[in-house]
Amino acid sequence: MSKPATTRFQPPAIDKLPEDIRTRILAVQEKSGFVPNVFLTLAYRPDEFRAFFAYHDALMEKDSGLTKAEREMIVVATSAANQCHYCVIAHGAILRIRAKTPVIADQIAVNYRKADVTPRQRAMLDFAMKVARQAETVDEADSAVLRGHGFSDDDVWDIAAIAAFFSMSNRLANFASLRPNDEFYALGRS
Amino acid sequence: MSKPATTRFQPPAIDKLPEDIRTRILAVQEKSGFVPNVFLTLAYRPDEFRAFFAYHDALMEKDSGLTKAEREMIVVATSAANQCHYCVIAHGAILRIRAKTPVIADQIAVNYRKADVTPRQRAMLDFAMKVARQAETVDEADSAVLRGHGFSDDDVWDIAAIAAFFSMSNRLANFASLRPNDEFYALGRS
Amino acid sequence: MSKPATTRFQPPAIDKLPEDIRTRILAVQEKSGFVPNVFLTLAYRPDEFRAFFAYHDALMEKDSGLTKAEREMIVVATSAANQCHYCVIAHGAILRIRAKTPVIADQIAVNYRKADVTPRQRAMLDFAMKVARQAETVDEADSAVLRGHGFSDDDVWDIAAIAAFFSMSNRLANFASLRPNDEFYALGRS
Amino acid sequence: MSKPATTRFQPPAIDKLPEDIRTRILAVQEKSGFVPNVFLTLAYRPDEFRAFFAYHDALMEKDSGLTKAEREMIVVATSAANQCHYCVIAHGAILRIRAKTPVIADQIAVNYRKADVTPRQRAMLDFAMKVARQAETVDEADSAVLRGHGFSDDDVWDIAAIAAFFSMSNRLANFASLRPNDEFYALGRS
Amino acid sequence: MSKPATTRFQPPAIDKLPEDIRTRILAVQEKSGFVPNVFLTLAYRPDEFRAFFAYHDALMEKDSGLTKAEREMIVVATSAANQCHYCVIAHGAILRIRAKTPVIADQIAVNYRKADVTPRQRAMLDFAMKVARQAETVDEADSAVLRGHGFSDDDVWDIAAIAAFFSMSNRLANFASLRPNDEFYALGRS
Amino acid sequence: MSKPATTRFQPPAIDKLPEDIRTRILAVQEKSGFVPNVFLTLAYRPDEFRAFFAYHDALMEKDSGLTKAEREMIVVATSAANQCHYCVIAHGAILRIRAKTPVIADQIAVNYRKADVTPRQRAMLDFAMKVARQAETVDEADSAVLRGHGFSDDDVWDIAAIAAFFSMSNRLANFASLRPNDEFYALGRS
Repeated sequence: MSKPATTRFQPPAIDKLPEDIRTRILAVQEKSGFVPNVFLTLAYRPDEFRAFFAYHDALMEKDSGLTKAEREMIVVATSAANQCHYCVIAHGAILRIRAKTPVIADQIAVNYRKADVTPRQRAMLDFAMKVARQAETVDEADSAVLRGHGFSDDDVWDIAAIAAFFSMSNRLANFASLRPNDEFYALGRS
Repeated sequence: MSKPATTRFQPPAIDKLPEDIRTRILAVQEKSGFVPNVFLTLAYRPDEFRAFFAYHDALMEKDSGLTKAEREMIVVATSAANQCHYCVIAHGAILRIRAKTPVIADQIAVNYRKADVTPRQRAMLDFAMKVARQAETVDEADSAVLRGHGFSDDDVWDIAAIAAFFSMSNRLANFASLRPNDEFYALGRS
Repeated sequence: MSKPATTRFQPPAIDKLPEDIRTRILAVQEKSGFVPNVFLTLAYRPDEFRAFFAYHDALMEKDSGLTKAEREMIVVATSAANQCHYCVIAHGAILRIRAKTPVIADQIAVNYRKADVTPRQRAMLDFAMKVARQAETVDEADSAVLRGHGFSDDDVWDIAAIAAFFSMSNRLANFASLRPNDEFYALGRS
Repeated sequence: MSKPATTRFQPPAIDKLPEDIRTRILAVQEKSGFVPNVFLTLAYRPDEFRAFFAYHDALMEKDSGLTKAEREMIVVATSAANQCHYCVIAHGAILRIRAKTPVIADQIAVNYRKADVTPRQRAMLDFAMKVARQAETVDEADSAVLRGHGFSDDDVWDIAAIAAFFSMSNRLANFASLRPNDEFYALGRS
Repeated sequence: MSKPATTRFQPPAIDKLPEDIRTRILAVQEKSGFVPNVFLTLAYRPDEFRAFFAYHDALMEKDSGLTKAEREMIVVATSAANQCHYCVIAHGAILRIRAKTPVIADQIAVNYRKADVTPRQRAMLDFAMKVARQAETVDEADSAVLRGHGFSDDDVWDIAAIAAFFSMSNRLANFASLRPNDEFYALGRS
Repeated sequence: MSKPATTRFQPPAIDKLPEDIRTRILAVQEKSGFVPNVFLTLAYRPDEFRAFFAYHDALMEKDSGLTKAEREMIVVATSAANQCHYCVIAHGAILRIRAKTPVIADQIAVNYRKADVTPRQRAMLDFAMKVARQAETVDEADSAVLRGHGFSDDDVWDIAAIAAFFSMSNRLANFASLRPNDEFYALGRS
């Protein structure tokens, strides 16, 4: 039997959850075959659950000038910089699936500067890291570099917003010692 | 005439905004006498606006073991560590109003360790700073310290979640060079 | 009744102080309406008091290619980087008065990179921060940048010397937990 | 012929200097056999020269609970942390002379934690380093540790003030690329 | 066809290598089914190859109070702190094989503080990280903590020496942009 | 009588050491007039002793595009950055002897950026420091800078490998609190 999502806050039983939250959790279980622990942990706070996933979906699921794989690259790089177990392992799996390669997630998690990414993606990750680690120094020159790689102003917003959203998410998961489900480690590796 | 909220992304005119967003903005304008720039800037992305304020309200407006002034202390300390203009100036004003003292916000913004706070509030801010700056090292011992100051597990979640949420917010505002409205500087000083 | 200048070292009564020190303190009280706490605290050590203010005046009061407001900008930026309560609050007040604007001091205290300063002043503050935080890497190239903004070699000396002097002053005030007088918070805001 | 004190600012000829400054320089030359470069460089600014040496003497020459060798230990440790050529080399020489041992200065310059000092001196240097590098975190607990090693409150002030003064001095010397006189390297080694 | 070991230094063909080096490489190929890129890259410098592997084997292959899995934990933690692609990926694979679990390597690579290790192993990794990141502060108190967890003085040497050896190895691999063989990513995962 | 090499690990008596190690130690004693403590300490582990000195000699004794003095400059700069007593003091002595100047070692130990080195040596030291402190960011652009100063690809390898080797050595010596022999302090000063 696998270990609990987190030892700090006991998530309620799924059938005790508010209808909309239970529905979302059952949908992800249906699709993935398991319930990612972030759903169970945030369900402890229904209003925060709803806002968190609404924000997540607004950034990660919509149409964008960034592919879904590229957005997951930003998540993995940011989460690695913040040493977030849950986010690196879970989004590493999603990145492997979306990028259709078994190596890119581990490469970005260890050192994105050495990963097999395009120069455009490298610029994207450099900027995401700047937002994640030294946002106080971001200025117009950073956007100019990105435009030189073909990113639109909306793409720049997306990169920054994803790096910022996971700067929050990484801190929540580290605070709660949120444990990645064992299923994530092997997903997308073959 | 005051300067624009941000020079990077042009917010739409208020009467072009979706109904729910326009309503919220008009309500805050009614209450405060001006529209804080964060509303105008985030309105550029309606779905993100909705998620952001839903999250904000879930943490900052609900009942909690932390007073509203204490929650604003966390915001100011986190935002100062992240060197975020908008958040230090705007939430500094809110903190002055909620704490009913003109000096506490500036004290916390410069160095929360020297501010006129209680030992319990000092422990709260130490923990918030750890979440904001080194969340990867947070562990059960941190919660034990907080419980020793009378905080419940739910209070600990609140402290961590507020520090995490503003870790996102600070990065968004720094990215967008979001400008505090001139009105904030003097609010709550007399 | 306001709190003492510092809880660590009891300053002597003003009428017990050496003549020259008492005269200076009474003069500043006459001019400002109160005695800034730095005077009372340093009076604990008369020789250090004399040297400190002689140095201060040699840098801050003389004629210079930098305006007095610009010199206070350097003080506020340096003191914010060093998280010095007394210096940010007291010199923030002086900066508001000298720059004749209520917002510039708070802007520089939070993040000088986003403040309403000219490109020349931005270069001045970048250099002051380099002296304050990484003086070991300062070299001739830094002076060349400043000369490109119209600063003379003497101006460069002034910027460096002010940043260096307040690097001392910030450490003394933080060591002594020197408390800003309550009067400073509101000065120059209207 | 030895290299100039600094390539940036030309010190005036000694016989062009104000009387009091020339007298002091000739006195040190008489005593040491050479004019330490810091005198020549600061003479570029007579008022700053006077304040600097008045402050220096108030801390380093007076009676104190710290021996003169201990005070030089603080100077060398602070200056090494700040990577200041002039101060490490020149005050290393003075420390060798005052401590009457050829090894202590190099030991402290490389890593004061491994140097041949007493536990009391180790506590003194730990505190001086905290003032030099993280003064914003200094608090009453630091003084308590020092009192446990027999330091009086006045001794604590002296340690802090010396670390603070050389935090200024190191920055000035690094800014000016102040060159130690060749004589210092060998002084006190045999 | 897989990418070259490194794009910077062309390793010689295996049959041109000195006899002892060719023999070692063929032995590892026989055992593993492929030649790990570190062998090919270091073969560029036969004397360094010999010393490197002699050192490696002296630490990693001998009998020790640390299990081979524990030694690989130190390697992965050190290499993650140094962001070394080759070492995290290759030694992560070895750790999975030696610890007979597919999750431990990724856990340690992201944040060893949250990994499924025993308190004794946590103390071992804390010390290894201190050697890797702040060896200048290591002192006798660190050894005392380890002895409290049952480590002998020889075990302490082993932990420190492995962390130090991979501090070298990580830098070499990062300098050479040494690429992990694709085979490593999946090894030991099922 | 001088203090022991290290208080942590008792080196065996020289006549109890394996033949090859005893021979090497007696040879260095013959040449230098004393046995450098690193030999005695590493003799505690004969296999590590052999690998360490084989590696050392492969880098430091062979023919190279770098002079022996230049290689010692890299050692001193790296060891100073890592605050390693033994390596700064012992290799500082060797550098003085090889460079035939009494001042260069102390200059590099305090701040290599201000030392009397050529622009080519400055580029060499900048690169060595990058390998020592941020190897994860080294890339092809660094080599290009070095080639612009006339360094070959093999020279670049040598610089990186020496910085990496002493990154290990510094950690070992700091862990073991390895004490420099008193003889080193004065060597090469006259």
